[in-house]
Amino acid sequence: MVLPKEIPSSAENDMDSQTLSKLPISSILIIIAMQTEALPLVEKFQLSEDQKSVFPKEVPWVRYHGTYRNLQINLIWPGKDSALGVDSVGTISASLVTYASIQALHPDLIINAGTAGGFKAKGASIGDVFLVSECAFHDRRIPIPVFDLYGVGLKQAWKTPNLHKELDLKVGKLSTGDSLDMSAQDEASIVANDATVKDMEGAAVAYVADIFKVPAIFLKAVTDIVDGEKPTAEEFLQNLATVSAALDQAVTRVVDFISGKCIHEL
Amino acid sequence: MVLPKEIPSSAENDMDSQTLSKLPISSILIIIAMQTEALPLVEKFQLSEDQKSVFPKEVPWVRYHGTYRNLQINLIWPGKDSALGVDSVGTISASLVTYASIQALHPDLIINAGTAGGFKAKGASIGDVFLVSECAFHDRRIPIPVFDLYGVGLKQAWKTPNLHKELDLKVGKLSTGDSLDMSAQDEASIVANDATVKDMEGAAVAYVADIFKVPAIFLKAVTDIVDGEKPTAEEFLQNLATVSAALDQAVTRVVDFISGKCIHEL
Repeated sequence: MVLPKEIPSSAENDMDSQTLSKLPISSILIIIAMQTEALPLVEKFQLSEDQKSVFPKEVPWVRYHGTYRNLQINLIWPGKDSALGVDSVGTISASLVTYASIQALHPDLIINAGTAGGFKAKGASIGDVFLVSECAFHDRRIPIPVFDLYGVGLKQAWKTPNLHKELDLKVGKLSTGDSLDMSAQDEASIVANDATVKDMEGAAVAYVADIFKVPAIFLKAVTDIVDGEKPTAEEFLQNLATVSAALDQAVTRVVDFISGKCIHEL
Repeated sequence: MVLPKEIPSSAENDMDSQTLSKLPISSILIIIAMQTEALPLVEKFQLSEDQKSVFPKEVPWVRYHGTYRNLQINLIWPGKDSALGVDSVGTISASLVTYASIQALHPDLIINAGTAGGFKAKGASIGDVFLVSECAFHDRRIPIPVFDLYGVGLKQAWKTPNLHKELDLKVGKLSTGDSLDMSAQDEASIVANDATVKDMEGAAVAYVADIFKVPAIFLKAVTDIVDGEKPTAEEFLQNLATVSAALDQAVTRVVDFISGKCIHEL
């Protein structure tokens, strides 16, 4: 955390975490899985691509960074798979970039933004942007006591009552799995998770953020209706560009709201 | 890589990777997801637990290390989940420890050892230890061209023809997913992957090892027959201790074989 100028730098060592948490948020880490979702925000916040990566040279992860309204913004996109050339989507890449970014960049707050499938039975429509209340996995079934809970991996998002009040975002629970489609078992787990939106990264970001006790919030924009008529992949590709625009607008409003506030004012 | 004593240390900078790969393997990273599987090997190789962790203080990952037959051995167990107290199994923890261990320890070779489900239709029996030829995922279904291949994430294990000849281990393909049970969709993907054994970590270790071009081999011991009569969880728990002993014996034989050899002699 960069200290505001009026506080002498020697005070840093004396401040406990409670005091630190009353300082305005200074560094945000935005994690976005797909380039299509990320690039409009890179432009909006006028971020620059890293010339000398903070990550090992072997990984495809891309960092964009800059300052926007007194916030130091790092936007990380896991990049293209080096062999196949597609976005490195899913929980493994998401957990790795979250881990490495926390180590390298020490953010005050993580924002995981991305597109998602939505359930119309739970009130989701195409283009809705959800502020996530909690995340869990729906494809880690381990039917052994306690391991079953580990598999579900329920994590609360950072509570943001004021953000919720100020912005008119819908609120819902997120369920994460590594498949774009949904099997009958996935569906049963998603229902058990009481989820309104379904993505491929959120709970993985939440897992790593929780280990390091970094507050994390999740913005998920609905590209396809999972319990609707159209096949997910087709609907997802059809709506990706336009829904990404809605997502980016929501992220901008959230970042504008965050600027100047401390973590407990969100 | 630690250089053998007869080579002057100044030669290191001049050696290309081809020359380096002709030197005996000096550092092995063993990744094991469960404590029950790990502890007998810690004793066998007389490894010590890290006093000052090479990992961030927040993670539960445990490193055991020591020297055995001129090999520097690091055995990493992802530890107990801090909230739930169970082993941190599955692909996310496996990928994180593989990443962080490669960064901190620069191993010449990774051995991922663990228990697995086996398919009797493909020749697996309880207690068999398989040397894995290739790894893929069975629970990352992304039905979009090229993304589908990314989801499957097929990676070759390091080729070890001499190790195979010397030790009488069965050879088979491994399929990885985050569930202990198997849904109909999982089964279809496992059949498509032509897998004989099914685990919860292998392909994740392979993914990260491949990014950093660290050779990796996989030893998987069969605790339960997936296409058999008994429920997986019950059979797994019943056989975990005895099959772990068979696994540990196999890992010891593999490490004994590796000692003194270069990576291309395996």
